Order: sequence, then structure tokens, then C-alpha cells
Amino acid sequence: MTAAPSVHREIHLTSRPVGEPTAENFALVESAIPEPGEGQLLVRNTWMSVDPYMRGRMNAGTGSYIAPFDLGAPLGGGATGTVVASKAAAVPVGTAVLHQLGWREYAVVDAAAVMPIDVSLAPASAYLGVLGMPGLTAYAGLTEVAPVAKGDVVFVSGAAGAVGSVAGQIARLLGASRVIGSAGGPEKARKLVEDFGFDAAIDYRAGSLAEQLAEAAPEGIDVYFDNVGGDHLEAAIAAMRPGGRIALCGAISQYNATEPVAGPRNLAYAIGKQLTLRGLLVGSYYHLAPQYAQLAAGWLASGELRTEETVLDGIDRAPEAFLGMMRGANTGKMLVRLAG
Amino acid sequence: MTAAPSVHREIHLTSRPVGEPTAENFALVESAIPEPGEGQLLVRNTWMSVDPYMRGRMNAGTGSYIAPFDLGAPLGGGATGTVVASKAAAVPVGTAVLHQLGWREYAVVDAAAVMPIDVSLAPASAYLGVLGMPGLTAYAGLTEVAPVAKGDVVFVSGAAGAVGSVAGQIARLLGASRVIGSAGGPEKARKLVEDFGFDAAIDYRAGSLAEQLAEAAPEGIDVYFDNVGGDHLEAAIAAMRPGGRIALCGAISQYNATEPVAGPRNLAYAIGKQLTLRGLLVGSYYHLAPQYAQLAAGWLASGELRTEETVLDGIDRAPEAFLGMMRGANTGKMLVRLAG
Repeated sequence: MTAAPSVHREIHLTSRPVGEPTAENFALVESAIPEPGEGQLLVRNTWMSVDPYMRGRMNAGTGSYIAPFDLGAPLGGGATGTVVASKAAAVPVGTAVLHQLGWREYAVVDAAAVMPIDVSLAPASAYLGVLGMPGLTAYAGLTEVAPVAKGDVVFVSGAAGAVGSVAGQIARLLGASRVIGSAGGPEKARKLVEDFGFDAAIDYRAGSLAEQLAEAAPEGIDVYFDNVGGDHLEAAIAAMRPGGRIALCGAISQYNATEPVAGPRNLAYAIGKQLTLRGLLVGSYYHLAPQYAQLAAGWLASGELRTEETVLDGIDRAPEAFLGMMRGANTGKMLVRLAG
Repeated sequence: MTAAPSVHREIHLTSRPVGEPTAENFALVESAIPEPGEGQLLVRNTWMSVDPYMRGRMNAGTGSYIAPFDLGAPLGGGATGTVVASKAAAVPVGTAVLHQLGWREYAVVDAAAVMPIDVSLAPASAYLGVLGMPGLTAYAGLTEVAPVAKGDVVFVSGAAGAVGSVAGQIARLLGASRVIGSAGGPEKARKLVEDFGFDAAIDYRAGSLAEQLAEAAPEGIDVYFDNVGGDHLEAAIAAMRPGGRIALCGAISQYNATEPVAGPRNLAYAIGKQLTLRGLLVGSYYHLAPQYAQLAAGWLASGELRTEETVLDGIDRAPEAFLGMMRGANTGKMLVRLAG
């Protein structure tokens, strides 16, 4: 470990995207690394996460559940790093930590706002994916929000992504009899079945979603884990069996919309089928984290849970990583590696 | 009680309505009264119910939760009556019963398919309203489907109707701090507040629903009991507080639609607000009926629960009653009186 330099690089949001974000909404900025104050740490970031929810934070505040990013300031989000200077006895230099000040090479963080991670158990990057927020999201969705019961048929959209790829496997581990995933393109669809163990995969670009879903689940589905919204949600509602449960986790198909997006035209089916649709924010389920961490560690060790990462190197590529993730360029968790 | 005649009148569905039903979809038919077989009863109907769900049964079967009415045959639905001939020892002549063969003056019913009712406790018509399916629907909706907690702000649409007028009052009795109802027209809105004890009423014909709701519930709502769908559901989603619950009970604004109806454009808010939307069919909650009957009897006796009926006389007016109910011509339960 080398001594910390005095300047580092960070990514600023320079303008609010209208519709699909572009590289022009971001800037790579060199800035002085602040000194940690009492109770603070200087962390050299090793990995940072890009996640769909960040798109909402790029808009001006409009009653979202999370504050907008400021213009002309670094963005934020999940990151891992190593403590290189500490003014908090509880977190000594050398500790590997998870925190929320990504999008920069170094971060000054309150010691109370970091979580030490055990990098002998799993690589640091795993704490941004399967062992982190995306993994817990999948688990909470399928245990609390839209609980999977033994024998259920489960459909997961965005199934090649960080949350979806884990959700499909957890559904099976929770007793689902059949797990169907959707993704964009034949290569991802192949991966769902061959690498992540889905029973059937739908390439949503290859034709009617409703028809493909009817073919993959001729007797309907019991649980739908929604990362996509839009057509996917409508097709799932049509395919739901009575008493079906839907976890509304994401609506990536709509995040760039500049006009209100029509809701599912068949939502009234939810009455006759007695469906439950429930929104999911992982922040409400951190109490499940210890239980999930233990389960996930076991599943990873046994090979029952497999993950993938799509990695870009260097803080300068963070906008590219985010834009690519929004377009579905990743398989598994999209990450930016900032340091070894 | 006079001896049963040999012929009676019944209402047949003669054509399937396209869009809004009209009197031409129905016919008053005179027919022979069948003889009750072993284990059956001949019932002289006293009251019959018209309910929104019947509109769905007038369509050809398209995967609804309930079978379509046959063409050229009597419609069916909740009715009360008096047994005038019995071939079932358990249900003697003179028993007042609730059954499902309305839309006719006399019915031959299996004894196993009737429920004796206590007309000394409440008039027979109450068993089609506050003490029957509509009342239980309201109760199940606010206890199981979208549970009301103490202090909640509750919004009920179609609040002047059979279900809505009871739902608003039950919400208050379950501890709601504020209850808001919507109805069509100033007269009904006035009744919501003056007769049914709502804190505020919205006349949805009088201007923007969203604006009126924001005014009536400036800090948002916790529970929405949806009888209407469409704009009402969208306005409610916008007004929901985090963790809010929506009982999807009816979508009367859409029952006559001939094209798929766009869903709420703001459904994605359900993610960030962690809303729960759940469909409600009363048939899944009959286990609550004894508990509800006891509560409701107490509330009626104490005057805490008030009801209204809109009554038309004579089987020939049943189509008019149904069409009027679909247009909101009723306050409280819409009924047809067939015999004293």
C-alpha cells in the first residue's frame, strides 16, 4: 500500500439527463483529497458499483424516495475500499470496508458509515453484488415481498443483471419448481439457462413477450420479480395464476422516460386473480442481511449460487459503465475497478 | 303466504352487451315454475341484488374468475326469499333464506345452497347489503387486504355505493383518523359527510380528482379502497404515503370498456413508496363472515354504522336497477323488491 496522494479523480454530474443519459452529463474532475477529521477515515476505493436506481437520483428532486445528486459535485453509491488513514480507533488503517461514497478514487467517510468486510471470505467486489445490496434485494423480494412457496413457477425479468441473476437462483433454492428469466439478446438468454440454471429463458427482443412467456410457463406463474416494468409487467399480470405475487423492484424500461408511461392495461386482472403487487426498497430489509449473508455464503461455497461480473477498469470509465448497465451491456454485476 | 302459482316471471339475458348495457340486452320472460326435487326448496324471492360484478358475467367467457351468464336464460345473483315448498327436512316451509338465484320471482334451489337468515335481527334486504356480500367485502378489504391501522388516513372511491358507504364507516371504526370518500355529484358528496360520517367528500365530476384529493388529504393517504379503477387509482397512487396499502376491489369505470384501458401511469411510484396493491374477491374471506356479522350487528344497533338502500319495485324493473347502479343512480345498496 502506497501513501495516499494529495489529489485524486472523481466523476461529477454536470447536467441532468433528459431521457437517456450520455457521457456529456458527466465529467472527470481532479480534486484535492480532503483530510479526514476526528472520527473519519480516508479510504482508497477499490471497487465501485453502478446501479439502475442511480438514474432516478440524476433527476431534479420530484418526491423520489432518495435525494437527487447535486450538480457539479461527485455522484455517490456503493463502493469498497481500504482504509489508508484513520482518525477512528475502531477502524484501523488496512481495514477493508463497504461504504456509499463511490464515483471517486479516495473518499473521506465517517467511521460510523462504513461496514468492515471480510475479504478472506469473498472478494471485495462480491460485497457490491451477490453479498451486497443486489443480493439482499433478490432475497428480500422472494422471501418477504413476493414470497416463493415450494412448487411455485417464478418469472424474473432483467434476469441477466446483478439482482435478476441472483433472484432466479434464489427462487430455485427456495423451492420453486420452475424458474423463467428474461433478458435482451440470445447470448444472455443462453447464459440464463447454461450458467445461472434457469429452466427457460426469454429473449425479449426476439418477439412477443406475452407469447414467449405463455410458451415458457403454459400453466402460468405464481411469482414475478419485476426489474423492468412496462411490457414485462403487463405480460406477467396476464400470465399470473390466482393468488400470484409480484415484487415491484425496478422499472428500468421507464427510467429514461420523459413522459408519464402508461401502466399495465390489464391491471384490473389483479382483482379477479387476487394478485398482490408490492414495491421493494432494499433499505427496508437490512434486518435480513445477517440471515442472508449466512445463506449466501453457504450457497456460494457449495456452488449452488453462481455469479458473474462485468468489470471496467478505471474511474474514467465509470460513466461508460453506468450507461452500459442501463442499456443492458452487462451480465451479472456491473462494476468499476478503481484499484487492486 | 299464498300458494305458489304455476308460472312466474324472470329476467333473461338475450344478448351480450358491447360497452354500456341497455334495456335491449334483457327480456322479461314468463315461465313455468319447476317442481322442487328431493333435497330442494321452492323459494318465493323477496329481494334481489344488482351488483357491479354482474357486468363481467354478461360478457362471453374470457378467463374471468366467474362463469358467464348464459344467453336466453335467467341471470343470477344474490336474493332473499321465503321457502314455500320444501323437500328438505332441514329447511322447512316459512324459512327466510339467502341464495344465489335472483332475477326471478320464484327459485328452485338445493337446500345445501341456501343460508337461513334471521329476519327478526335485521330486515331481509340487509342480508344483501351491509350484512351480506357488500358489507363483508368492505370488512375484508380493510382488515385483510389493505389493513387499516390506528391513525391512518383512508380514501374510499365509489363511497356512496353499497360497499363504499360501509367501507368508509368501517375504516373509522377500525381507527382511521380521517376518512375521505369520492362519489359522483354534489348530492352524494353531501350524503357522504352528513349521513355516512366521512370527514371529506370529493365529487369526482366537479374537477380534478388529484387536486381535490390533495386538498382533502394534504399529508397523503395510507389506505385506498378502490371500487372504481382508472383515474381514481392513479390519483390515489400519487397521494399514497410510503408503505400505503390499496385494496383493488372494483374497477367500475372500466367494466363497460371495449378496448384495453391504460393502467395508472404512475404505478412505478409503488416501488419507491413500497406500496402494496392487492386484489380482493369476497369469496376468499367467508371465514370472516361470523366475526363480521357479530361486529356489524353491534355497530348497526348502536347507530355507529348507517346504511341506505335504493329500492325499485318489481322484477320487471331489475334491468333498470342494474343499469342505474352501473351509472351510479343509487345511494347505498341498490335492490329490487320482488315481494313483501
